[in-house]
Amino acid sequence: MIIVLKPKSSEPQIQEVAHAVKKFGYEPRIIRGVELTVIAAVGDERRHHTLESLTAFPQVDHVTAVQKRYKLVSRDFHKADTTVRVGGVLAGPGRFHVIAGPCSVETERQTLEVARAVRDAGATLLRGGAFKPRTSPYDFSGLGKEGLGILKKARQETGMPIVTEVMSPQDVEAVSDYADMLQIGTRNAQNFALLHAAGQSRKPVFLKRGMSATVEEWLNAAEHIAAQGNSNIILCERGIRTFETSTRFTLDLNAVAVAKKETHLPVFVDPSHGVGRADLIVPLARAAAAVDADGLMIEVHPDPKKALSDGAQQMTPDRFAELMAALRPFVELMGRKLG
Amino acid sequence: MIIVLKPKSSEPQIQEVAHAVKKFGYEPRIIRGVELTVIAAVGDERRHHTLESLTAFPQVDHVTAVQKRYKLVSRDFHKADTTVRVGGVLAGPGRFHVIAGPCSVETERQTLEVARAVRDAGATLLRGGAFKPRTSPYDFSGLGKEGLGILKKARQETGMPIVTEVMSPQDVEAVSDYADMLQIGTRNAQNFALLHAAGQSRKPVFLKRGMSATVEEWLNAAEHIAAQGNSNIILCERGIRTFETSTRFTLDLNAVAVAKKETHLPVFVDPSHGVGRADLIVPLARAAAAVDADGLMIEVHPDPKKALSDGAQQMTPDRFAELMAALRPFVELMGRKLG
Amino acid sequence: MIIVLKPKSSEPQIQEVAHAVKKFGYEPRIIRGVELTVIAAVGDERRHHTLESLTAFPQVDHVTAVQKRYKLVSRDFHKADTTVRVGGVLAGPGRFHVIAGPCSVETERQTLEVARAVRDAGATLLRGGAFKPRTSPYDFSGLGKEGLGILKKARQETGMPIVTEVMSPQDVEAVSDYADMLQIGTRNAQNFALLHAAGQSRKPVFLKRGMSATVEEWLNAAEHIAAQGNSNIILCERGIRTFETSTRFTLDLNAVAVAKKETHLPVFVDPSHGVGRADLIVPLARAAAAVDADGLMIEVHPDPKKALSDGAQQMTPDRFAELMAALRPFVELMGRKLG
Amino acid sequence: MIIVLKPKSSEPQIQEVAHAVKKFGYEPRIIRGVELTVIAAVGDERRHHTLESLTAFPQVDHVTAVQKRYKLVSRDFHKADTTVRVGGVLAGPGRFHVIAGPCSVETERQTLEVARAVRDAGATLLRGGAFKPRTSPYDFSGLGKEGLGILKKARQETGMPIVTEVMSPQDVEAVSDYADMLQIGTRNAQNFALLHAAGQSRKPVFLKRGMSATVEEWLNAAEHIAAQGNSNIILCERGIRTFETSTRFTLDLNAVAVAKKETHLPVFVDPSHGVGRADLIVPLARAAAAVDADGLMIEVHPDPKKALSDGAQQMTPDRFAELMAALRPFVELMGRKLG
Repeated sequence: MIIVLKPKSSEPQIQEVAHAVKKFGYEPRIIRGVELTVIAAVGDERRHHTLESLTAFPQVDHVTAVQKRYKLVSRDFHKADTTVRVGGVLAGPGRFHVIAGPCSVETERQTLEVARAVRDAGATLLRGGAFKPRTSPYDFSGLGKEGLGILKKARQETGMPIVTEVMSPQDVEAVSDYADMLQIGTRNAQNFALLHAAGQSRKPVFLKRGMSATVEEWLNAAEHIAAQGNSNIILCERGIRTFETSTRFTLDLNAVAVAKKETHLPVFVDPSHGVGRADLIVPLARAAAAVDADGLMIEVHPDPKKALSDGAQQMTPDRFAELMAALRPFVELMGRKLG
Repeated sequence: MIIVLKPKSSEPQIQEVAHAVKKFGYEPRIIRGVELTVIAAVGDERRHHTLESLTAFPQVDHVTAVQKRYKLVSRDFHKADTTVRVGGVLAGPGRFHVIAGPCSVETERQTLEVARAVRDAGATLLRGGAFKPRTSPYDFSGLGKEGLGILKKARQETGMPIVTEVMSPQDVEAVSDYADMLQIGTRNAQNFALLHAAGQSRKPVFLKRGMSATVEEWLNAAEHIAAQGNSNIILCERGIRTFETSTRFTLDLNAVAVAKKETHLPVFVDPSHGVGRADLIVPLARAAAAVDADGLMIEVHPDPKKALSDGAQQMTPDRFAELMAALRPFVELMGRKLG
Repeated sequence: MIIVLKPKSSEPQIQEVAHAVKKFGYEPRIIRGVELTVIAAVGDERRHHTLESLTAFPQVDHVTAVQKRYKLVSRDFHKADTTVRVGGVLAGPGRFHVIAGPCSVETERQTLEVARAVRDAGATLLRGGAFKPRTSPYDFSGLGKEGLGILKKARQETGMPIVTEVMSPQDVEAVSDYADMLQIGTRNAQNFALLHAAGQSRKPVFLKRGMSATVEEWLNAAEHIAAQGNSNIILCERGIRTFETSTRFTLDLNAVAVAKKETHLPVFVDPSHGVGRADLIVPLARAAAAVDADGLMIEVHPDPKKALSDGAQQMTPDRFAELMAALRPFVELMGRKLG
Repeated sequence: MIIVLKPKSSEPQIQEVAHAVKKFGYEPRIIRGVELTVIAAVGDERRHHTLESLTAFPQVDHVTAVQKRYKLVSRDFHKADTTVRVGGVLAGPGRFHVIAGPCSVETERQTLEVARAVRDAGATLLRGGAFKPRTSPYDFSGLGKEGLGILKKARQETGMPIVTEVMSPQDVEAVSDYADMLQIGTRNAQNFALLHAAGQSRKPVFLKRGMSATVEEWLNAAEHIAAQGNSNIILCERGIRTFETSTRFTLDLNAVAVAKKETHLPVFVDPSHGVGRADLIVPLARAAAAVDADGLMIEVHPDPKKALSDGAQQMTPDRFAELMAALRPFVELMGRKLG
């Protein structure tokens, strides 16, 4: 930690802060500059309380951390890329997997139709929402358990492992009975009770980035899961909140590039939610492959015009097949195998 | 809903969309403009599925809602300001209440000391975190149930009703045994399972705005609670995520002004989290009173320099007493009674 | 400057950076931590080149400035509040001035009508746009020189000093012939050629904050003017770009509170542009007074429904008179004289 | 334009607005819904004043535009991709050009060294800042005219056309004497006086997106240039302001995908400024090619550690050569020729 003091702080004021630094378990090093004095607090920032509270001293201007807070998910801690196994699918280095399926599970027919189509086009994991977070309480919020049952049938028929969202700690066990990977959505990305419950399960976790989370907060959310003993985590960038209105969110491929440097975990990209417009998914999917993402999550619906949720961003099975064909050479250029 | 078609859409294309509008249960009205055709879909947007899925038609440029989604919390539905009773305290028109207390309950002594001090200075509700959401899993995350017990003692001694955060649906019942008002934090502002659990309890709910929630999403979050039968909701603005770095968040007093127009529920302001700097709380608290907020939530710690969380933003009891004195004339100018 | 090295940097790598620090004219102090090594570069950051380029060393993780870049406008440099004289009007401590007038000068009649009305209601400075920045080239962009002539007449008739925008360095001289204060708009807040031209004139400058400028960048923009020898600067907060859509921009009163601490210059607030909705101006104007702003800029039009620009945010003269009445007790509570 | 009235507006209130719509030159069509009445204003929105001022009616809830404001730069107006000629270089369909060079022209030697290196690696246009916009007045702000002279020499020696920034309308002529393409930077992206001056010159214009400009505002900025008679415009995405701090800005590749749909003009990407970190440029450059950008702008310095500006984001010539090699297969996959 670096504690920057205000200009003209007196010697006793400097010593007072240095003393407090010591009390928090760090060793203080005082650097006297031309206009400012700075105290470097030497110690493991992860093991001690944050020194941010020192800002409460009137002579302290600000406090800056120099060390990252996450450890288990950090590449400093574990250099090599991690492979996460989901059912029979291995996600990570050398592979590129596309998770596809409808936004919401609406009917058995719709789900099976999409499942077969995306499998035939090369998708290896099936997504589908049974519990749907919806901004308004009057929107369709999913079929719940019935939806989980439909997903199970789709797995039996197509052999594809299932990824589905869990919204509450109480549901983790039930959803785990059906799903091969638990998805935690953007609105729950700092729902720490849910992160802990997912960390205590044995299932791999598909962790979406919070729509206003920094990369550091996203990795700290993953650390919450890993700290409970479950390191089978796939990260997923899905768009952040910005001022731009031509897309629903701003898909942040910079964050993918940063995350690939910072963590050994696989990083996927969800352009469907990221932009909220089916007509932009192909170029952004190519870009995601080129930025070195480990996979994609794509929403597909047999007839998006009639979808009960997010019709604007779902692709038809035909368009999805075109996407997969367009994607393949980019994936291979990156030295990865599609599927 | 307004469906804007792309320039040069053909007559059959226009009719195709009009037909789909009808199938979704709305009545279509076609308006042919100079360059564009627009279809107005007449019907109650809250009772039907959203027409957003029509964007999946290639001839549709975009779809815009004209009606707000929330109803129970809307001033269109209920004109007069609502008064919410918390223990013996009435929050709403004509009153201005200050909720104060430590960020985290750390010890019985710390909590009681602060409770007495803030009561003596004029606060009417006691806050204190027993379950703390923390970005890093290695930070102090609260005393849990032990903390709730300490808060109970503080209520017994000071008579102040207790406001404390609940982070998980399973905890709603247990927290309700101790708390007079359930707080839902910014990171759970779209945790719909938690909103539903709070909606099913009998306790008033203190709903923080999500740090990246629009006012509309914030009111829809309240609608999720109200739709479960619990309309005892106090809204609280606590700062949004922006590019600015001189404050931790950007306290958004515009949103308070908008919310006061849109909803009949009381709206509070939390400048402690909003700016994350104790030295800015007094001017922003005055501004919150002047913008016509119904109250404040302020963090107070006996010695912020030693706080286990958020020391930078907690006030000393002395500074808090000064704040209350500075605030009073502004509150009275607004025609409200402090406390 | 603080240079944070990557974990496990070798001794020669550390010395290489220390050596480069010396070459840039700073004195390096090496602090060896548990996991990380940090180099503090001692020297006046304003007089030397930024050390940011050191990030180009592979062993450097990041570089952080500890010192602010602005000096002349800083309260560290000049403790007491500055009073800026505009015509006969003194803006600064103990006063609260309201600058009012139409968004655009449309006709002589419209301008004079508004000028008289706002003067009678207590405004002390007249605003009016002759050169208007407009997002689209097809929008009304002001009357130009003819508009300046109308403003001159309004000054002759009402005695109010004139504030009007200048958009180009070539126009500074011509606008200075008519205006008592040069306004620099949000879209030109980092137009350094214009800042320099304004700095070389003798006129006071009304500097709007850039809609995506941090407080630090805003003060650095003022420093660009001051560094040319003109310290007669009034800062004006006018709303920032955020994700929120219920208001046109997000008026940032936190920034006013921060700026009042950081600089000795007067700080005004423009709620008309800040929210873009006339119906929210009264509460936000009260809040601006309560946060300790030195004044307001408000748009007034005789018939906003017919305005050639920004009708949604302009007040009628009657509403403006009500605003002034509502504002007065808040201004006086702050120990200021209105007008 | 769509004018949404407030619930329960009376018949005379509806007629009053319809009448005002007519007076603004549009034809009103009244649509009476279940809860709301909406008036569609039929007419060319570009040729009439905006109806936004109607929001000043108390019975109007909000006004929405249905038509885009830009025309000359729109693909609706001109379907085929435009090719822009810069010196002997053709930018647009089928090609992919990399503009490279130092952030600032520092010395003749540095500039020539970089120019030769980037040409040899496959860059086809040379960038270099002679006039530099800098946040602080105490930073190096470029060599000015001397820098232009150095760029001229670099062109003579390498044959590469020159792209350099112009910051003020007065400088357009002088910079045009040296440059083959005028760059307008992000801080001047809504400096309308400069846009007009550039529009009146014969030179092609390289228009960076404003760091807080929506795609629509960016295209309107281009329309300002085109409306002056100069349609030789290349757009450049260079990162937007968001809350994320791990990169300096957030490079927005969504905006590139949107712009490619909306406009016929070539769209380039500047990852150097977009992320501000040299270590992320390769993956983001690949992504830019894959999203179908028409080219890149990359900063290269012989020794970034000693750069007078933006050292953190400049690449060495060797790394640049690697980037070009890495880029080539992606460019070719997109059906484009590199250089």
